[in-house]
Amino acid sequence: MTKRLLRVLRGEAVWPPPVWLMRQAGRYLPEYRALRARAGDFISLCTTPALASEITLQPVRRFGLDAAILFSDILILPWALGHGLRFVEGEGPVLPPLKPRDIDALDPDRLGDAVAPVLETVRRVRGALGEAALIGFAGGPFTVACYMIEGGGSKDHARTRAMAYRQPQDFARLIARLTEATIVYLAAQIAAGAEAVMLFDSWAGVLSPLLFRAHVASPAARIVAALREAHPDVPVIGFPRLAGTLLGAYATSTGVAGVGVDTGSDPAVIARLVPDATALQGNLDPLALLAGGAALEREVQGILEALRGRAHIFNLGHGVVPDTPPEHVAALVSLVRRA
Amino acid sequence: MTKRLLRVLRGEAVWPPPVWLMRQAGRYLPEYRALRARAGDFISLCTTPALASEITLQPVRRFGLDAAILFSDILILPWALGHGLRFVEGEGPVLPPLKPRDIDALDPDRLGDAVAPVLETVRRVRGALGEAALIGFAGGPFTVACYMIEGGGSKDHARTRAMAYRQPQDFARLIARLTEATIVYLAAQIAAGAEAVMLFDSWAGVLSPLLFRAHVASPAARIVAALREAHPDVPVIGFPRLAGTLLGAYATSTGVAGVGVDTGSDPAVIARLVPDATALQGNLDPLALLAGGAALEREVQGILEALRGRAHIFNLGHGVVPDTPPEHVAALVSLVRRA
Repeated sequence: MTKRLLRVLRGEAVWPPPVWLMRQAGRYLPEYRALRARAGDFISLCTTPALASEITLQPVRRFGLDAAILFSDILILPWALGHGLRFVEGEGPVLPPLKPRDIDALDPDRLGDAVAPVLETVRRVRGALGEAALIGFAGGPFTVACYMIEGGGSKDHARTRAMAYRQPQDFARLIARLTEATIVYLAAQIAAGAEAVMLFDSWAGVLSPLLFRAHVASPAARIVAALREAHPDVPVIGFPRLAGTLLGAYATSTGVAGVGVDTGSDPAVIARLVPDATALQGNLDPLALLAGGAALEREVQGILEALRGRAHIFNLGHGVVPDTPPEHVAALVSLVRRA
Repeated sequence: MTKRLLRVLRGEAVWPPPVWLMRQAGRYLPEYRALRARAGDFISLCTTPALASEITLQPVRRFGLDAAILFSDILILPWALGHGLRFVEGEGPVLPPLKPRDIDALDPDRLGDAVAPVLETVRRVRGALGEAALIGFAGGPFTVACYMIEGGGSKDHARTRAMAYRQPQDFARLIARLTEATIVYLAAQIAAGAEAVMLFDSWAGVLSPLLFRAHVASPAARIVAALREAHPDVPVIGFPRLAGTLLGAYATSTGVAGVGVDTGSDPAVIARLVPDATALQGNLDPLALLAGGAALEREVQGILEALRGRAHIFNLGHGVVPDTPPEHVAALVSLVRRA
């Protein structure tokens, strides 16, 4: 029998909708914090299959979610291509700010060996899952480029956007390199057992419509087409966060099976902009999950009503925040299941 | 003869569209930097009519723009209500993080005296303007509340959203207080000579659709209705930044004469979502203006084409960034005028 999440990604309106949460594995879970203490840095955690697979499974086991998502990080890809990366406690990722000559130094030949432990994690998780589907993922090339150019997180990604306008050839070359590497990486995750893959393009919303088409939608279209050739039955979920009014054109032009919807988007309007055959995934405010209680119920009901009859995967509009009480996640799952 | 900007705000498609720029007065202009050095802190600058009026007029004089916008800050309102505020060089505004008891301490009786110099600035600018229209402004109550609750700028406004979910009564009371004060403040700007007013709700996009309706759209509707009673001919431009898919419902439910469109929104889709009678203002990427050249031309043409035949005010999707060469602004104005 096809898993519930995968049925929705084929365009079926499953009721009640399947549910999983972005960043469902992580610091808000005591069992995560216990394991976390056993690895040194964050990269070691992501590349130690015994730990990463256990962390991936923790929330599925605890809450009975409809999907497991590989525990990893979108910056594992540039790291695997030889670009420096370290995680600084309380500060997030730090990378050497990219210069044009660094683009050609990105080495796809390193990729296979570097991500071998990640693929081993995928295999272990797949072997341990029952009804839940396994989602692999990568960052959208634009968002990965943002981190590389800014040297870490950024308020407005001004350096990245300035480069896209002022050095369009270099920028396009970087995006193209990352796109090809992403295809190889996601295909390997699929070969290892991922049943769907998701592209996290977290900063897509900062781009003008013209740049969005060039650096978010086109690369996603290329990735979807290449994966479809080798793995026609494995759906791709695209999440160009904050794309809003651009989400309809994104869905149509990329051919993704589903799109992530962020918290600030109106699901009813998104349902009109995006073709019916494309599943919608989202879009509860992580802060409503943090708050719990009546606020959580109201927000959940609003989303369920707006998307009833539509191919819908219930999720957050952004990742779980660290202070979230695990009981609120349990309450959310039961609200969706009772819908 | 009605000024070009005001014709568009009555729903007329004026061609070529009138043009002005958010943060058109400021650090990127050498004549601003020269004046800036003559005031102590930023609040003094905003409350010294001789300086603030001259700064307001500088870009209009230099570029022949279709509008002047009062040089001030959205945080002048909470400051005028007695909430502490200072601007720290390189860090932005710093406020004492709001506690529930601070809400009742906000004192509308202080407002008149405190903003008297701002109103004097409005009078001076209005007296000096020719063809350009004078726009007054205030922050959207939600965005002002964000700064008060977070104690300054914030990456994700998590404290504010948590308060909206967890202490809904307190939060609603704060928004209501700010809404009433905003009405008084904007009505005073209109009485002093503002020919249109704009509501900057910069952080509106972080809210879920339910919270957006309650704390962004409803307050804006209340402000528009109250101002219309006293000043039926003065249009209100609403700018709930990053509202995206919510912009159509915002325009309809508030009755604003125009809406600001941010950089990440697709103007063609926005034109379908927002009623024809509502003017659209935007939405060039400030980074395209920074870059200039072919990138600037391409982006400008894209926007002009998407909105041709529509009531449109050409503007940025966000404020001018400090490094912008003034020649690029001149080039932009001439691109729009030659359209």
